[in-house]
Order: sequence, then structure tokens, then C-alpha cells
Amino acid sequence: MSKRFMFEKPLGMRDTFPIIYETKQSMKKRINKTMEMWGYRFLETPTLEFYETVGAASSTMDQQLFKLLDQQGHTLVLRPDMTAPIARVASSKLLNDQIPLRLAYSANVFRAQQNEGGRPAEFEQAGIELIGDPTISADAEVIALMVSVLRDAGLENFQISIGHIGFVQDLFIQILGNKERANELSGFLFDKNFVGYRQHVSSLGLSSIDKERLMKFLQIRGTHEVIEQAYDLIENNQGKQALIQLEELWNQLEEYGISEYVKLDLSLVSHLSYYTGILFEVYAEKVGSPIGNGGRYDKLLGKFGKDTVATGFGLRLDYLIEAIEVLEKPSSTHCILFSAERRKEAFQQARDMRLQGKYVLAQDIAGVQDVDRFTKSFSDVTYLIGAAPDREGIRS
Amino acid sequence: MSKRFMFEKPLGMRDTFPIIYETKQSMKKRINKTMEMWGYRFLETPTLEFYETVGAASSTMDQQLFKLLDQQGHTLVLRPDMTAPIARVASSKLLNDQIPLRLAYSANVFRAQQNEGGRPAEFEQAGIELIGDPTISADAEVIALMVSVLRDAGLENFQISIGHIGFVQDLFIQILGNKERANELSGFLFDKNFVGYRQHVSSLGLSSIDKERLMKFLQIRGTHEVIEQAYDLIENNQGKQALIQLEELWNQLEEYGISEYVKLDLSLVSHLSYYTGILFEVYAEKVGSPIGNGGRYDKLLGKFGKDTVATGFGLRLDYLIEAIEVLEKPSSTHCILFSAERRKEAFQQARDMRLQGKYVLAQDIAGVQDVDRFTKSFSDVTYLIGAAPDREGIRS
Repeated sequence: MSKRFMFEKPLGMRDTFPIIYETKQSMKKRINKTMEMWGYRFLETPTLEFYETVGAASSTMDQQLFKLLDQQGHTLVLRPDMTAPIARVASSKLLNDQIPLRLAYSANVFRAQQNEGGRPAEFEQAGIELIGDPTISADAEVIALMVSVLRDAGLENFQISIGHIGFVQDLFIQILGNKERANELSGFLFDKNFVGYRQHVSSLGLSSIDKERLMKFLQIRGTHEVIEQAYDLIENNQGKQALIQLEELWNQLEEYGISEYVKLDLSLVSHLSYYTGILFEVYAEKVGSPIGNGGRYDKLLGKFGKDTVATGFGLRLDYLIEAIEVLEKPSSTHCILFSAERRKEAFQQARDMRLQGKYVLAQDIAGVQDVDRFTKSFSDVTYLIGAAPDREGIRS
Repeated sequence: MSKRFMFEKPLGMRDTFPIIYETKQSMKKRINKTMEMWGYRFLETPTLEFYETVGAASSTMDQQLFKLLDQQGHTLVLRPDMTAPIARVASSKLLNDQIPLRLAYSANVFRAQQNEGGRPAEFEQAGIELIGDPTISADAEVIALMVSVLRDAGLENFQISIGHIGFVQDLFIQILGNKERANELSGFLFDKNFVGYRQHVSSLGLSSIDKERLMKFLQIRGTHEVIEQAYDLIENNQGKQALIQLEELWNQLEEYGISEYVKLDLSLVSHLSYYTGILFEVYAEKVGSPIGNGGRYDKLLGKFGKDTVATGFGLRLDYLIEAIEVLEKPSSTHCILFSAERRKEAFQQARDMRLQGKYVLAQDIAGVQDVDRFTKSFSDVTYLIGAAPDREGIRS
């Protein structure tokens, strides 16, 4: 192998060095604690799943899946998200115990990337799933818990955009007449390509009133007061039902005292046929992509044989660290440098100091090539060198 | 997909349910703390690595590697261990900072399995690597830290077998004349097939004295006193050097006060050409396979362009949980069941209780189909149902 190649990692793969690792661990500890305190229990699923089951049920596009063949000839995928694996576990085992079921996870997921210097192909997601509760209280709890988690992680400035897939779908079907045309227009919203959306609407053979409705729809963003404007755009029953749900959700978020973090955005859509109701994204200052998202997915568990409703959220820990900016301060470590004659004394001293809760490294000086370079990263250095036990000194 | 198939996982893949997950987390917390207190810093490497670099450098047999092609046509592997990835990172980046370098990890690794009901194909390993220190003090520190980690994890009964690859190699070359014949005989030791070893030795065209030496060699197991017997078997300088190192190691382990956990076993060998000096395995009562292993691997970093010595250990967390047997007691969770009228009160009460450190779940009763079944897993249930705020009651 070439000298350059031997250090390299596959496209989108990254090493996490100690300072970032420690920051992530400290953040995860607080996040996990909060999720547990709200009654969620953690589980873990395998990194590899069958393509035919979890791969097909996930919301990730096929070309983003890492696929491989196992020795029995099945196609496997590296899990692209945790929602589908948890739906598999819940359907096969856990839903026999308790409904509603509250589950949490913190796990690496995988999405193949096309370009050098692009997004990471492996990243950690922390999230929860609330399974089996059809009420708006469940949607509100998921959002309230997400706010609580983000604040406990140390994030102050963030904004949650909330939409409802039922409203968009009904409005589009009503005006455009069929699913294909509705999905085509939704594609622009999914890509957040609003210029393309407007051009597309202009090019359609619609009445000027209907074009006006589709243009106005883009502007329905803000607090609960915008729901009034949305009622004016829609005739259909199901679309109205979506608005009633959003009003109810807003009331509950006010009761939780977190409506300041939230705005409604009725043009928010997801991958086709994944979310089925209320859905949301969360943005932090200075991070270009959403640091998390979630929503109601009432059809997913049906793919695993249990026709059960569900809602949840997932946060990207890499983006969250980027958003919080503050790195963990490494623990200060004391170094004992010893020579063979005083080795036993060094072991004893290291043990005693650790029992007092100190971080202590004991290093044989015979193993060090450059003492100055080695010792400079420690808060204190004790030298236990040579025969005389009274020559001990502390340097800081 | 068939109804049966949709719940299934790939061969050797497992779900980890909350009770085991929580046990593992609690154990990891203690393990990681101990490693950090000894001056080791954690890092993380990607799940996928190039086959040509990390795959080839690892000690795992080729047919046990999970391989896939990336979109650029490179062969990737799911990391089969953490030692080779850490050697890659240390060689490319970290060794410029500080030598000796102390690194730690806790990560899932992957080994493809051939049979249904066999070993897990994905499991978590926790371990450390001490890079750049050629002294026996480094080998002793690694073993002493492993003992400390195992005790802090809650394990009482374990036994570490220590050997030296240099002794076996020299004895075999001396008697058998060439590497091929030596490797063939080592294969029986690696498989712990002592019957096969004896049969093979009998079948060789050797003097009865040499056959006797190869048979006696198997019995060199015990405390440091057996080293005397080993001196009688060997003439070569390098083999003697190995025994001197083992004597020095034993002295240091006595100074650490941990020789009670250790026995020498000179027939201990590893995969060909991986370990280069002292090596060891750790066994716990009631677990058939080693729960951990380690040793000196002075040639690995050279494969990544840095000719630097190293030693370390890795523990299998699944076997360690099996060995410890005690499962974590789940946190007792309080449930508040509320109806819409008293929702705000329920949110307030849940928040107050969480601020007092309690685990509290607030559930809208409209989302529960079977209240008795739902509430039975909670330590306490508060009902906030109906209009009157004075009808509150606690049931335990």
C-alpha cells in the first residue's frame, strides 16, 4: 500500500479524538439521564439488519444505504436510522408487555456519501420513540422532552419548526387532483427549494385562485395565530382535522411552557410516506442542517406486523456538539515518573492517590525517550528516581 | 416478506433489551472511570475501514471479516477489533504529541459467524493500548490495570494466564528446525487441542529427548516457580530472554499485589505473527471462552509507517456481564395518569418531581387502552383524572 493510503479512512468516515469524545460522553450522560427521568428505557439493536425488512422500512434513500451480502446470500444493510430497528423489536417482543411503550436509544447510524469532503457517513443519533399512544398528548410529550434534552445538553438558542403532513397532502390533492402531481410539488418543499416551487406552480394549468392558494400556503409560518390563515386555504375535512390537531398541540406546548421555542411551518414535509401526522425539525444557531427531527409515523409498525401508532424524535450528536461549541475540559492528570528502584513506592503512591479520586499515571522513566516532551501535558509530575527515598520532589 | 422473516436479524446479530443495556452501561461507567484514572484517554474510530489497511493488519481471519464494496470500488471491512484502527490513528496523528501514549476505547467489533446459534457476530470490547514503551513496566501496567478494571466491574473470581510468544517460537524452531513445522505445531496450541498436539509430536521424526522436551513443555504452568523448569528446556538466547522478561514481570505483578490472579502458561500462543512478546488471556468462572486477552505487539504500528512498540488488552463486555451475573436494578419510575382537564397540573407535578431527582412519566389516560396492564410496572401511580382537583389519589 502507498504511504499516503495507509492512513486513510473510507469516504465520510471520521476519527473522534479524546477531547471531542469526552465532550460527547459528558453530553450523552446528561441527555440519557433526562430521557430516563421522563420514563424512557434504553435499548440497543444490531448494526447490521436485513435489507428486506429494516432496510426497506427505513426512510433513507436506497443509494444512501451501505449494503453487503452475508455468507448465506442475504442482503444486509448498516442501519441508516434507529426508528425502523426499534419498530422491529417493539413489534416482535416488547409490545406484548406494555402499551404505550417508551423507548430510547443512542447509536451510530450510517448513510453512504457521494463526495469527498461531504457529510459524515457515520454519526451518532440519540432519540426516543413513544409507541402505541394516538393522542396529541403523545406528540406534545415528544416535543417537550426534546426541548428538555436540548436544554440539559447545554443548548440555549434553538428553534423547532412544526408542520402537519395531513394538511399539505390534502391541500395539494384538492388543488392538483392526484397523488403524482401532489408528490411532485412536495418534492420542492422537501428540498426546501422555494424558488423551484414557485416556478413549478406558475407553470401548472391551474386557475389563478388555486395558484394564489399554493403561493400563500408558503407563508403560513409563525405562532398559533397563523392557523387562522390556514383555515382559509382548505376546504377538505382531513386538512381541517390537521389544523385542529396543531391547535391542540400548541395549547399543550404552552402548558409545558415551551412555546417560545416553537414556530409553525405548514410547508414542512418529509420523505414520502414515512411521517403520517405532526412532524418537526429543530435548528440551532450556526449549524446549517437540522440538528434533529421527528414526528408521528403511524404506519411503520404495521410493516412489522403490529398495526400500532407511534411518534418520536432523533437528534444528531455531531451537530449538537457543533451547536453547543463548548468543549469538555480534560481531567487534570498527575504523572509519577519512577525508576526501577522505587517502582513499588510509585505503585503504592499511584494507588493511594487514585483512592482519593485523583487521575494518576505511573510511568517507568526507562520507557520515556524525551522526558520534557512527555511530562508537559500533565498538571503535576512527581519524580521517584534513583535509590534514595528522600530525593522525592514535586514539580508543577 | 413472510410473517416469520420480518422479525428476524442477520446471523449472530442480537438485540439488547433495557435490563441488559442498563447493566452494561453501569459496568462501562465504572470500567471507563478506572481506565481514565490510570491516565488513559478514550477515542473512537469509524465502524468501516479499508480492507487493504486495517483489515489486513488485524488479527482476525479473513473469512470472519464482514466485507463490502464502497461506491468508489474499494473493499471495506466492519472493524474486527480496535487495536488495528488505534494503531492507524496513533501512527498518523497522535504519536507526534506524546510518547508513551495511553489510549482507551469501548466499541463494537464484528466477526462473521458460520452457524445458527453460534457466537455473536457483533459485540462490544473495552480496552486500552499503551504505545511506545518497550519496558516490562508497560506489560505489567497493562495487566495490573486489567485486574483493577475487572474488580471495579464487580468480578471477583478470575484467572489470568500469561505466556511469552518468544519462548514458544524459539523452543519450536530449535527442535523442529524451521518455521513451517513450528507454525504447524503452534496451531494445535492455538486451538487448545492438546490431544492433537501430543499425537502430532509422537508422529514427528525426532529424538526421544526432543519429543520429551515438547511433551514436558505443555506442563509448564503455575506460579513463577515453573520458570526454573522452563530454563531446563531451552538452550537458545532468545528463549532465555523471554524467561528473564517473565521473571521480571512476575516481580512487578507481586509489587502491584496482584500475583494471586496470575498463573504462567508457556504453551499460550496467539494468531500467527500478531503478538511479539508477553501475551495473556483472562478467564472467569462459568464462562467457557476467555473474557479478555492482550499482549505486546511490537510490529503492528510499523505496518502504518511508525516503527513503534505497543502493548494492550481488550475485554469482551458480553462475556463480562455473563461472568458477573448480577443485573442492574431498574430505576423505579413514578407514573402520573392524567385526563385533559388536569393536564397542566400533571405537567407541573412531573416537572417538580424530576427536579427532586425522581423518574416520572406523565401519561394521558386517553392514550391507554388497558389501565391495569399499563400501570402494573410502576412503583407508584398518581391519578389526576376528571375536573375536580381534590380527587387526586396515590396508589402503590
